[in-house]
Order: sequence, then C-alpha cells, then structure tokens
Amino acid sequence: MDKIHNFSAGPCILPPEVLKEASEAVKIWGGNGLSLIEMSHRSKPFVAVMEEARAITKELLGLPDRFEILYLQGGASLGFLTAAYNFIPEGGSAAYSDTGTWAAKAVKEAKHLGHIEVVASSKASGYNAIPHTPSVATKHSYFHYTTNNTIYGTQYKHIPEPGVPLIADMSSDIMSKKFDSTPFQLIYAGAQKNMGPAGTVMYAIDKEALGKTGREIPSYLDLGVHLSKDSMFNTPPVFSIFTTLLTLRWLKNLGGIEAIEARNNAKSDLIYGEIDRNELFTGYAEIDSRSTMNATFQLRDSNHQEKFNAAWTDAGISGINGHRSIGGYRASMYNALPLESVQVLVDVMKEFERTI
Amino acid sequence: MDKIHNFSAGPCILPPEVLKEASEAVKIWGGNGLSLIEMSHRSKPFVAVMEEARAITKELLGLPDRFEILYLQGGASLGFLTAAYNFIPEGGSAAYSDTGTWAAKAVKEAKHLGHIEVVASSKASGYNAIPHTPSVATKHSYFHYTTNNTIYGTQYKHIPEPGVPLIADMSSDIMSKKFDSTPFQLIYAGAQKNMGPAGTVMYAIDKEALGKTGREIPSYLDLGVHLSKDSMFNTPPVFSIFTTLLTLRWLKNLGGIEAIEARNNAKSDLIYGEIDRNELFTGYAEIDSRSTMNATFQLRDSNHQEKFNAAWTDAGISGINGHRSIGGYRASMYNALPLESVQVLVDVMKEFERTI
Repeated sequence: MDKIHNFSAGPCILPPEVLKEASEAVKIWGGNGLSLIEMSHRSKPFVAVMEEARAITKELLGLPDRFEILYLQGGASLGFLTAAYNFIPEGGSAAYSDTGTWAAKAVKEAKHLGHIEVVASSKASGYNAIPHTPSVATKHSYFHYTTNNTIYGTQYKHIPEPGVPLIADMSSDIMSKKFDSTPFQLIYAGAQKNMGPAGTVMYAIDKEALGKTGREIPSYLDLGVHLSKDSMFNTPPVFSIFTTLLTLRWLKNLGGIEAIEARNNAKSDLIYGEIDRNELFTGYAEIDSRSTMNATFQLRDSNHQEKFNAAWTDAGISGINGHRSIGGYRASMYNALPLESVQVLVDVMKEFERTI
Repeated sequence: MDKIHNFSAGPCILPPEVLKEASEAVKIWGGNGLSLIEMSHRSKPFVAVMEEARAITKELLGLPDRFEILYLQGGASLGFLTAAYNFIPEGGSAAYSDTGTWAAKAVKEAKHLGHIEVVASSKASGYNAIPHTPSVATKHSYFHYTTNNTIYGTQYKHIPEPGVPLIADMSSDIMSKKFDSTPFQLIYAGAQKNMGPAGTVMYAIDKEALGKTGREIPSYLDLGVHLSKDSMFNTPPVFSIFTTLLTLRWLKNLGGIEAIEARNNAKSDLIYGEIDRNELFTGYAEIDSRSTMNATFQLRDSNHQEKFNAAWTDAGISGINGHRSIGGYRASMYNALPLESVQVLVDVMKEFERTI
C-alpha cells in the first residue's frame, strides 16, 4: 500500500518507530518471556516504565519541582470533574473561558462543584477566535481554559493573565510548543493527540496547591490519593502508558519541545500559506487565533467538494474531513505528522486550483 | 527461552493467539494502511469493534435484553463510585458484603453517596471465607458483593439471596463460569483478569433500573450518558477494548463459558488436590469458600521457602508470590492459563516433597 498521510484529529498519528516497538512489546517485553500486557503492573520493569514516563514528561515540559505527574484514566472528560473537585473549595467558585465544545463541557462538569463564571466566550462568532481574557475576581480559585480547540482550529497564542492561578486542558497541543508554567496549578491532557494512544490522561499538578478544598473527595477523583500511590492507586492502563513513554522518548531524541515547535511552525506556515493564497479556499479561524495543530478551512464553492475529496483521497490523505459541527476540512498536524504529508496536501490544493 | 507458566494475579495471562493478533494490529489494522492506535475511534472499523465487543459480552454472559454493555475507563475503583451514584437515590442506602480489601474499598466509595450498611463480613477471620448473606432491609437499594477475592482466594459459590437486587464487582471471575443474571441490576468488572488487558472496565447494566435516583450525576459517572452515546461518550481506550474483543472471540471459539468453566474446574481440582494431599503445604481459604481463580496456600515450614522458591522459578513458573497482606503463595488460574501450567506447578510441589 502507498504511504498514508494521516491527518486524523485523534486518536492521531504516531511515529512509525513507536508503533513498531509497541507492537513488539505486545508479543514479548521486559526480559521475563511475557508480553507487556500480561505481566503485573507492580513488576520491576513496568514500575520503571511508569517512573520514566512521569519523569520524562516533567523534563520535556520543563516543569519545576513543585509539579508532580500522574498518568490516569477517564480522559479529559473525567479531568473536567477532577480539576474542579481538587481546586474549588466547598462553596467556592472559578472562572472559565468558553472557546467551544470541549471548553463548554469543562464548564458543565465544574458546575457540580461550585459557582462557575464564564468570563470569556467566542460562542457568538461560532468559536472562530480566542476571546480576550479579562481580569477576574480574586474570589475565583482559578481561571480554566482550553489551550487549543480542535474542532474550530483555534489556539491561545499567549498565556492568559486573569490575575488568578491557571488550570488548562492542553489535550490537543501539549508537547507541541514551549510555555511558561509559572501561572499554572494544574495542567491536564488526554494522551491521544501529541503524547500517545488513547487510554490515558496526563495530570501535571502543583502539589503545593493541592489538598486545600476541605472536601471529601472520592478516591479515584482525588489527585492526592493518586500522588500518594505514585500513579499506581489501581491497575494503570499499561499499554497506553508504555506507548506514551515511547512517544515521549522519540520526542526527546528529536531535540525535545524546541525542535518539535520549529517543525510544527513549518507545517502550519505551509498549510495556512496555501489556504490564504489559493482562492478556492477560505480559513475558518481568525488569523490571529489560528491553531498550529488543526487547520480548519472550507471550499468557497461547495460544488467543488466531490472533486476535491476525490483528489486528496487519491493522494493517500486520510482524516481531513471537518468536525460535523462546522463541516469543511480540518488538517490536524500533530507532532508525529511529517512536513512531507502537509506538502502532499498543499500540492493537492495547488493541482486542484490548476485543473478545476 | 523456555515456556513461561504465568500465574500472575493481574494484569494476567492472555491467549498467545490474542497477543499475536493485537501485536499485528498495533502495526497495521482496519484496511486503511493505519495502525489500530492512530485512527479515529469514530471510524467504521473501530465502531464495529466496539459494537462487537458489547454484543459478544452480552452473548457470552447469556444476558437478557434488559441489559446493556459498556466498556469504560477507571477500573473497578471508579466502578465502586459509579455503582453507588447510579443506584442509590438521594438520602438512600445500600447493603454491602465485606470479603476483603476490594470489597472494603467498594464500601468506602459508596459512603460518598448514601448510608452503607455492611451486612456480612469475614474480616474477623482474615477474610479466609465467604460470609453468610442475611436477608436485608428492603429500604436498601441493593446488596453489593465481590464475587471473587483475589488476595485471599475466596469466591462466592452461590448467588446470594438477600431479598434486594444485586450489584456485583466480578473483576476477577467474570467469564469464568455460568451464573443466573436474574437478580442483578449491575455487574462491573475490570478487564485485566479474564477479559483482556488493563485499561478498560465492563459494565452490564439493567437499563430498566437505571436513572431512578433523582441525582444530578457528573457525566463520566453517569451510566445513562454513556449508554446514550453507545459507549463512545469520549475517546474510548481503543487498544484495550480491541484486545478484549479478541479475547472474547477466543473464548467463544473455545465453546464459551460452559467450556471454560469445565477447564477452570479441572485446573482448580488439580491444584487443591495437591495442596490437600501434600503435607508440606496448607491452604489459606476455607474449603467451601475456595476460589477456582486464585488458589492461596502456604508452606507449613517457612524454612522451606527459599528452596521452594528456587524450585518453581527453575520450572519457569512466574507470579505465584502471595499478596503482601497475607504472604505465602497464590496461583492465579485465569481463563487463558493452560492446565499444563497447573500440572507443572503440581509436579514441582510433588518433587519438592520427595527431595526436601
């Protein structure tokens, strides 16, 4: 089969060498003649995997000592609830930014734990831009935002300065660019975009800010419980964490976040350059809110759709249909997507313009 | 390397053909040139996996139409909370059996949702037996029990009759023997014993009994939310569910639960026969509470420990050290463990008796 150019929005493309090593480990791994997935998670080899995954995450993100890393289950969807449980005190409140579907879900779950004020929103414009962040009342425990919005292709370009600590769902742009962790007390991210396969979610927690809500928190939702058990409170998702570790090793060998950020910028410059140049297409997100991870665009003339779809399919491109809520196209360019794949898409767009 | 006899208590042994097929799928799967773990969970091939996994589970367990199946995340540890959230009404109560560590954890989490009465316990005897189930007050929404207790090697041999609906954590003996589902309103089970790898938990839910608590339930903990989304409320743990499906297909091809139950009985008869015959050893659990899944036993003379450990290690046996809370040995004999492996262990015990 010809090469596939996998623009899937998630679970997303992983490096070929990661897939190969993960595949081998499912057969045999760890030096005991067993498969990775049929040995105790408390065996020495797997405990070492968990510890390396936690350490390399902290290292790549450049997090100071006050942060501890966990790899848990339930995705960001359970993270929405967990964040609020651990950081809104009884009777307290928090400020949220509403930048789309996932941000709105975060608001919905947090409402179980306290008063939630949506202090910024781009809902009125179909979430096609990142809203301005106002200063928020200091009664709010934190300001929560979604750093990158996969559906609309928008991304915070600067860290917001609302005057209270930050909590961010970084599921779709974690490990894609450098950022200053100073204002954060919690960062969480489903692994299935830039970190690994589906099945695990990363939490980076300011341990000094934790445990101050006065709440009785159910064990699985209590980040302090998981920290006290070194991310092994219960059986962890072994395969997902192992494969995440392989992906993070790959990233480190590549030169870390700085190196991947340069690659990601080159990819997004290439696609947005073509979207802006080619008069058959138009971008969805406002220019200053454009995501380096997910480029959303549309055909100006929807009559061209069938022919364009045939053209990119023929070129081996996969996964660029837009989310059903906004239609059009979405080129997701997560870390493991090579520049070459973006070039193939751009070439298809150019050729389409020439022949239409 | 010589054959390994994997008695791990979990994550546990899986059939070799399952490991092979799962390994291949991590390389390439689904006919689109992609890996299983880098394609959208909403792609046709993976949606078919989810639907087959849900259907084959219901078929193998012989569940009537009132049951629906989900494959979620968070393990039984999150299941303890989820069960109580969905079935104890505001201000309500439930009855629990305390048969050890995991049962006690279920009690702890349920206490966040209502009044919990422990109506049966074998704590006083070190959890070496299954306690009698009394009739419980009908004010209780359900009676919760742990069908098999891996640490102590005890197992309910008959379905309890407390006079209220049943909820059971079947993590460690699901799919190992036939049972009558009539009294159940919820069954849940981490996959990593008899169903697949770590990373997913199965819920079998009486949909007619659901949604009657009057509670506002956080989305990820609301089984009704997951049912309305066909077990795809958020990104599912793709690899774990796929590999669980492979394991369930293997079980079905083998002849289903009836066939595996006969095999499991043959394995447990073999090991318990030797524990009772061989005067160097003694069983931990009371005879009428013995688990077919986990045989717990000890050396009568702890001075023999080092030599016995060397003997089974030399024979390629892995994972029979007892849980740290009770010590001794634990031979976990989940579905995929062949009788041959139990025979090797029994031969080691016999030879040890001959040469000590």
